[in-house]
Order: sequence, then C-alpha cells, then structure tokens
Amino acid sequence: MDEKTILVTGGAGFIGSHLVDRLLADGFKVVAVDNFELGRKENLQHLAGKPGFQFFELDLLERPRLHDLFLKHRFEAVFHMAANSDISRGGQDTLRDLRLTFMTTFEVLDVMRQHQVKQIVFASSSAVYGERDDVLHESGGPLNPVSLYGAGKLCSEAYISAFVANFDMQGWVCRFPNVVGERATHGVIYDFINRLKGDGKRLQILGNGQQEKPYLYVKDLVDAMAFIWRKSSAAHNCFNIGVPGVTRVTRIAEMVVEEMGLADVQFEYTGGTRGWVGDVPRFQYDATRLEMLGWQAPRNSDASVRIAIKRILGKAA
Amino acid sequence: MDEKTILVTGGAGFIGSHLVDRLLADGFKVVAVDNFELGRKENLQHLAGKPGFQFFELDLLERPRLHDLFLKHRFEAVFHMAANSDISRGGQDTLRDLRLTFMTTFEVLDVMRQHQVKQIVFASSSAVYGERDDVLHESGGPLNPVSLYGAGKLCSEAYISAFVANFDMQGWVCRFPNVVGERATHGVIYDFINRLKGDGKRLQILGNGQQEKPYLYVKDLVDAMAFIWRKSSAAHNCFNIGVPGVTRVTRIAEMVVEEMGLADVQFEYTGGTRGWVGDVPRFQYDATRLEMLGWQAPRNSDASVRIAIKRILGKAA
Repeated sequence: MDEKTILVTGGAGFIGSHLVDRLLADGFKVVAVDNFELGRKENLQHLAGKPGFQFFELDLLERPRLHDLFLKHRFEAVFHMAANSDISRGGQDTLRDLRLTFMTTFEVLDVMRQHQVKQIVFASSSAVYGERDDVLHESGGPLNPVSLYGAGKLCSEAYISAFVANFDMQGWVCRFPNVVGERATHGVIYDFINRLKGDGKRLQILGNGQQEKPYLYVKDLVDAMAFIWRKSSAAHNCFNIGVPGVTRVTRIAEMVVEEMGLADVQFEYTGGTRGWVGDVPRFQYDATRLEMLGWQAPRNSDASVRIAIKRILGKAA
Repeated sequence: MDEKTILVTGGAGFIGSHLVDRLLADGFKVVAVDNFELGRKENLQHLAGKPGFQFFELDLLERPRLHDLFLKHRFEAVFHMAANSDISRGGQDTLRDLRLTFMTTFEVLDVMRQHQVKQIVFASSSAVYGERDDVLHESGGPLNPVSLYGAGKLCSEAYISAFVANFDMQGWVCRFPNVVGERATHGVIYDFINRLKGDGKRLQILGNGQQEKPYLYVKDLVDAMAFIWRKSSAAHNCFNIGVPGVTRVTRIAEMVVEEMGLADVQFEYTGGTRGWVGDVPRFQYDATRLEMLGWQAPRNSDASVRIAIKRILGKAA
C-alpha cells in the first residue's frame, strides 16, 4: 500500500476517535496512540482488525518510545489531539494542563523536527481567547486565557508558530468551540444525562443557566479539520471552527429532559454567571475566515446539541 | 525594618541587576536570585554588604530550594526577569527556551500560588508578536512568535493570565523592545564593540544592515517597569514599553565606530533582510497605553543607542 500514513495522538479520545474514523474513511492509513488517561478502548473497538489502522498505547511524554514510533513509521502528518480536556479539573491541579495539554505538544513538535515530519494539525480551542465581549476573530487579541487549559492551548499554539518559522514545518491551528456528541467523557450534556439517570426528578445546573455558547457536533468538527488541512496551504494556518448560533445552558437541560422522555424535572441552579472558575460564560466566533475557505457547519448550535443528546442516548438521529 | 521585600529572579543578569539597583534606590528590600547561566557575579559586586540586599545562587527549576526561599522570606512581589536572553541560540536548542524562558515562569507562578504571594511583574518581549507589518498594540493579534524565545515568553504570558484568573493574583506584563546598556551579555552593540576590538578595520554585520528597531536604554526600561507596577492596578496588566523612533543596524555600527574613535572601518554585510532565523527585522510599538498611564521614555532610540555605547565603553554619558 502507498497511502499516506497519519498519526493521530489522543486517538482513543472523544474527538480523536471520530477523527480516526474520518481519516480512515478518506482512505488514509492511520496510526493512533493514546495513554488512556482520558481516552477509552471502547472508542476504537469497532476498528479492531481494520486494514490500514494501527493502535499503540503510548504516553507522549515518554520520549524514547515516541522516537521509536517515529522510527518505525513514516508519517505524512500528525493530528495532535491529545490533551487534558477537563477544563475545570485543570484548575485544581496546575501540573495537569502543563503536562497533558502543553508538554505533549512540545514533545510531538520536537520529535517531528528530529524525524523531518513536516505537517501538524492542532486541536486548539476558543479558550485561548479568554473572556472577551467582542466577536472573536483569529487575527484579534488580546489572548488572555482564564483557564489553565486555555493557557496550555495557547502555549501549544506559540510553539507551533515558532517551530513552523524555524524548522520549515507547516501548521494548521484549529480553534474548536464547544464540541458535543457520542463518546464524550465530560461536559454539560454528559453531566445532565448522568445526573438525570441518577435522579429523574431534579437537575442541578452550575451557574444561573444563562451561559450561552456555540456547540458543534463532533462529526462536523472533524469534517472541518480535514477540510482545513486539505484546503489551506500557508506555512502557518489558524482557523476558528464555528457554528451558527449559540445555545443557552437551560435550553440544553430542556432538550435533555425531552429526549430522555422525562417530565416535571425541577431545575436547581447553583447561581452565579459562570459554571466554575475558568469557565467562559459566553462567546461568539467570527467564522468568516473558514467560510471564505469554503466550509460552513451543516447544522446550527441547537441542532448540534439535539443530535449529540440523541447519539449519547443511543437513539437514531 | 518593615520595608516591603521584592524578589528579583535573574537578578544578576543584564536587566535584572539594573532593576535591583532601582528597587533598592526606591527603598525596597530586595532578594535577588540567579543561577549564573547568563547572569554574572560582577553585575552585583557593587551591592555587596548593602543593607536591605540579599543574593542567593539558585536555579528556579530546583523546586525544593525555591520553596525554601519562599518559606524564609515574605515577598510582596516577584519581578520575574530570569530567561534565556540569547534568541538566536534558542533556535538551535529547542529545550533552552522551554526550560529557561517558560518553565522558570511556571515554577515561579506555582510557588507564588502555594505561598500566597500575589504580585508578579514579568519581563515579556516584543517577540510575542512575531513578524507583523502593523504597529503593535497590546490588545492586538495575532500573536505568532517566530523565535522559540518569543514562544517561551508567550507561554509565560498565557500562564500569568490564567494564574491571575484562577488564584486571585495580580500580573504586570511588560513587553520590552530591544534593551541596551552596560552589563549586556549579547546583542548588536555588544557584538560590534567586541568585533571591532578584535579587528578595528572591518566589521561583519548580520543581514543587510537595514533592520530597524526601537532601542531603549536599560535604566529607562527599569524606570518604566517600576512605574507600571506602581500605577496600573488591574488584576491583569499588559504594556508595551516603547521608545520614540527606531535605529537602523548600519546606524548603530556608525555610532559604535565613532565612539570607539575608529576610522575607515569596512562594513561587511552577510546579506538578507534579517540577522538570523527568528530575528524580526523591523517592528514599531504603539506606546499609547503607557503614555496614557503617564510614562514616556526620556530619550529616543538613537539617543538610547548612543548612551548604551558610551556606558559599555566605560565613558561618561
């Protein structure tokens, strides 16, 4: 076979595993690695024995094993998805995002440099913008992250920029909004469903329920990533991956209740304008740059939340 | 004594040692630390035995010793100056800026959090902006550093922002232009003087000599830092420290030749628009924010270069 081989880090994770599905469907050979800190074996179970797919349990911070992997395979590109994805937990343990979100990126970049692998596609986040009132554009600042997760992502972006400039590499920075769908390991939909499975009569909602953000369905997100990588050809590329509209937390709770077939659920708000320290209660992307490149999300934020709830509950969309 | 005690990291370095002088002159007690990676004992020699001043040889990445320091002293604020300052060398060794420029910042922030020290004043850099054509404003983007040094500084800024938001701290990010003056360990003036001391007939100039940047005299810089810390009171503060005008590299060479009393020096250009990979050949700061706060540099870029040359040569200004 002479298809190109792609490395997906965090390949057993929520978004990573969907990306693996997508790249295989597009005809690439895929090597996925994960340390199972957040990833899960069952996310890749359906790919067991599939031609063109290989999985290795690997911690990206184990430098000798990472080098071994690059010696054994000739990667065309690396999709670096591995990270801490639990923002609120990152605020309690300051080393967590440093190691999982940033140092994994540094190690991946450095091993790519040493093995002359030139292309990195990076899972960044709206969290790099911090808390701002304006519509967020890729070229705008300031970038003052309010979570350690956002700091780890901005550090990663900074190093990608410098490696691209110094070592003849090419980078695609994809800034995700909130991403929802099956295989999620945390997040508001996941939490609501789990709480309501425990007690179908009341639902605790962090904050005042008025936080509103854009939510993108995970399969649409990986479609955007593949599109950006294929279509944008600068040395350094940076795109917000946006979705039309925003969805309020209380509206998500209502949709979860509907889809679970519950009634008379009491919503109990913990109060305050944000869910936790480091939460950004409201933001809106300027998605013009990605639209100009030719990609638009096929469904809006509400519809993304709806399909995510259905899929997490195992229902047909 | 009940004066406030300030910790200056990198206190034996070029800028750090001038800052120590300034804070002592302002009546603070100062504890300086340095690992002598770039700092020099002679930069602090004149302070030996001075009341209110203490120095410790310390590597900030030795966590137990850093904790010890914070147990023994009650710091009001930390001026974090320690970093790799040799941008071009940082491009050859990818771990250099990671460790010296970024990880020192992370360790300082984390020990401050644990010991409830709330105020950090940070030596950042124009390098966080990368290579841009527009006038650089603190609130603008994108931030795409082209040097690993710039990446390490942007990582530091990212973590300061997140620590301020999460741990009730206060941060002052000071983005330096090129800083010149006595005690410098590298840089264009330092290089020119050393080369001309070796051979007074010819001078190699990296690039085409047309690179032009704003240069600020080091004593003016530390004045600005002290001013910003005293006058700006937001939780997170960010300022370009600017200087009027820019100075072209060839003009610097001419001034060095003049001040050294040389004649008929042949300038030999290595060619190209920049001095080295990662060099930003030209930039201009918007210094409005700092002017609005009430500070302006007392001399322009050319005059800063001139006084720096004189002082490095040991002449009266």
